[in-house]
Amino acid sequence: MEQIFAHDTLYRFTNSVFKAMGCNPTDAATATNVLLSADLRGVDSHGIARLTGYIRLWEGKRVNANPRMKIVHETPSTAVVDGDAGLGLVVAPFAMQVAIDKAKNAGTGWVSVRNSNHFGIAGYHAMMALPHDMIGIAMTNASALVAPTFSIERMLGTNPIAVAIPAGDQPPFVADFATTTASNGKLEILQRKQKEAPLGWVQDKEGNESTDANALKSAGAMLPLGSDREHGSHKGYALGSIVDIFSAVLSGASYGPWAPPFPAYVPMPENMPGEGLGHFFGAMRIDAFRTADDFKAHMDNWITRFRNARPANEQQRVLIPGDPEREMETERRLHGIPLVASIIEELKVIGIKFGVEL
Amino acid sequence: MEQIFAHDTLYRFTNSVFKAMGCNPTDAATATNVLLSADLRGVDSHGIARLTGYIRLWEGKRVNANPRMKIVHETPSTAVVDGDAGLGLVVAPFAMQVAIDKAKNAGTGWVSVRNSNHFGIAGYHAMMALPHDMIGIAMTNASALVAPTFSIERMLGTNPIAVAIPAGDQPPFVADFATTTASNGKLEILQRKQKEAPLGWVQDKEGNESTDANALKSAGAMLPLGSDREHGSHKGYALGSIVDIFSAVLSGASYGPWAPPFPAYVPMPENMPGEGLGHFFGAMRIDAFRTADDFKAHMDNWITRFRNARPANEQQRVLIPGDPEREMETERRLHGIPLVASIIEELKVIGIKFGVEL
Repeated sequence: MEQIFAHDTLYRFTNSVFKAMGCNPTDAATATNVLLSADLRGVDSHGIARLTGYIRLWEGKRVNANPRMKIVHETPSTAVVDGDAGLGLVVAPFAMQVAIDKAKNAGTGWVSVRNSNHFGIAGYHAMMALPHDMIGIAMTNASALVAPTFSIERMLGTNPIAVAIPAGDQPPFVADFATTTASNGKLEILQRKQKEAPLGWVQDKEGNESTDANALKSAGAMLPLGSDREHGSHKGYALGSIVDIFSAVLSGASYGPWAPPFPAYVPMPENMPGEGLGHFFGAMRIDAFRTADDFKAHMDNWITRFRNARPANEQQRVLIPGDPEREMETERRLHGIPLVASIIEELKVIGIKFGVEL
Repeated sequence: MEQIFAHDTLYRFTNSVFKAMGCNPTDAATATNVLLSADLRGVDSHGIARLTGYIRLWEGKRVNANPRMKIVHETPSTAVVDGDAGLGLVVAPFAMQVAIDKAKNAGTGWVSVRNSNHFGIAGYHAMMALPHDMIGIAMTNASALVAPTFSIERMLGTNPIAVAIPAGDQPPFVADFATTTASNGKLEILQRKQKEAPLGWVQDKEGNESTDANALKSAGAMLPLGSDREHGSHKGYALGSIVDIFSAVLSGASYGPWAPPFPAYVPMPENMPGEGLGHFFGAMRIDAFRTADDFKAHMDNWITRFRNARPANEQQRVLIPGDPEREMETERRLHGIPLVASIIEELKVIGIKFGVEL
């Protein structure tokens, strides 16, 4: 049912597919790196499993394989980037690099992006800041699947936030999470296994709590982090809204329920108030606040102290954000990336279409 | 049991108390404005109810009534402010103003603050950006009450985040929330009423779920937004951690379990890794991204569309972050601020101590 593939094998395949789509070699390599970093880090829903989806968007002329990305407005610490309908996998690293370059001169850099597409795993982009001794921030809006508190209408995407913070001897702190109780990827895993979802992940079309992992297919909705009002869903709703506004209203992308859908067969919303999907990136130079050495020594202390916080029982330990993904990457670089049969089938179809062998 | 006071009455009283503590007239007015804005906006736990707590910190020589706040490091878009152990109610507006001034020149301004104290209601500081057509951000670390996912040790404060975003004809979007399932203030209300807390707000000292609103008094802990791992508590833990790191590790304040406690009778932690409490502020000029008119027109559209999202039932409507607090402020400016008997008693004691009449 599952088969293991070496990272290199999947890299060559994916890179060839992007080149066959018409991406130039640099963009193809970037897109491949971003996409496969999700598989390496164990965020399987955002990796090669989405390749078919990206190709369908390209076939539907919603993705431009050769975008001319450009800065359309800027100040010393900010920029707006027009992604020219390119793959988010290519547009996002371009825009994050602009944020990093701004930070070199102004201390921080903040870039809002319009006219883009899904950008893969948010953590990849945030982590681009780390080698520069900067804190990196990445967020994006996405197809509307989430109902605000007290509503039954899908108004927001799962709108993830990633924050990467450098440390010294310790590995970096890398938070990367959807602003919903559970990500759509986790819901898809339950659907595949025909299992029920825990209460608090989704609601049915009338707004009742539901354990139906397929609730979205019958006009249900995902729930903001917090699940219900009593447990703080208004905070998850506020967070998702902030991501939407920073990513799309600041840049001139399409926001809220008008965000362009990822599945190419879903018609585009009518009266879109902006262009494409939006992202938001930030880079903060550590030494714009204190010396990088001081900061890193204290981050090491922070991380060590939290990792040694008393666990609730002997089977558990306190994790630092980024720990599970880093351990997964070590494991998968060594032993390969498992893919389920249905994804392998999809990749074979892609391979035939583009004349590339898996 | 409850008594209503006009805002003006409480303003004169509080302002006189701060002046009697030794604050200069400007600082006293600032501190009073910040403190009472919490009462006006219905965040009763952060308002005049805390006046006794601030006074005890001052009596315990943990608060300096005449701080010489200063910028100790800066770049075009960043600064670190040393609060000189001043009232957070005074230090925070000073630092937020630095962020706003930076944004005027560099597009954005980001200020991390050390050596401060509790800053009252986060939303006040974020909202300072609004009249400048800027987005405002405010966050702070706080006394450790919250256990990370899988832990029974209190490592983080309720670490709130506030984001204020200007609109045009619509009132602004103002999110202001603790990164826990419920704020400590809500827990205190249940304690006062001798009611149980909903499951998911606190855990007991062994890490079991608990409905004991007094769990903190028997070595229990508050829970991060998400409540448990299955419902995303690792996301709330990550958010609270980011607030802690931006506020205290970036600035050189004391972080995590070493954050100075608010109750003056609690001894200071040993081996504190930094000075006092930390805050973090941001200001982003809207026209560093697109014209303020364009942005505001789209924010009006965003707000109107979300307010009209289909409600789950006829008794409910979808709220925009900031709606309840704004409605409360209108009501309380008109009809006064209700205070419970125990708070009134405390204020009378303060009045006698400082020779000020309520």
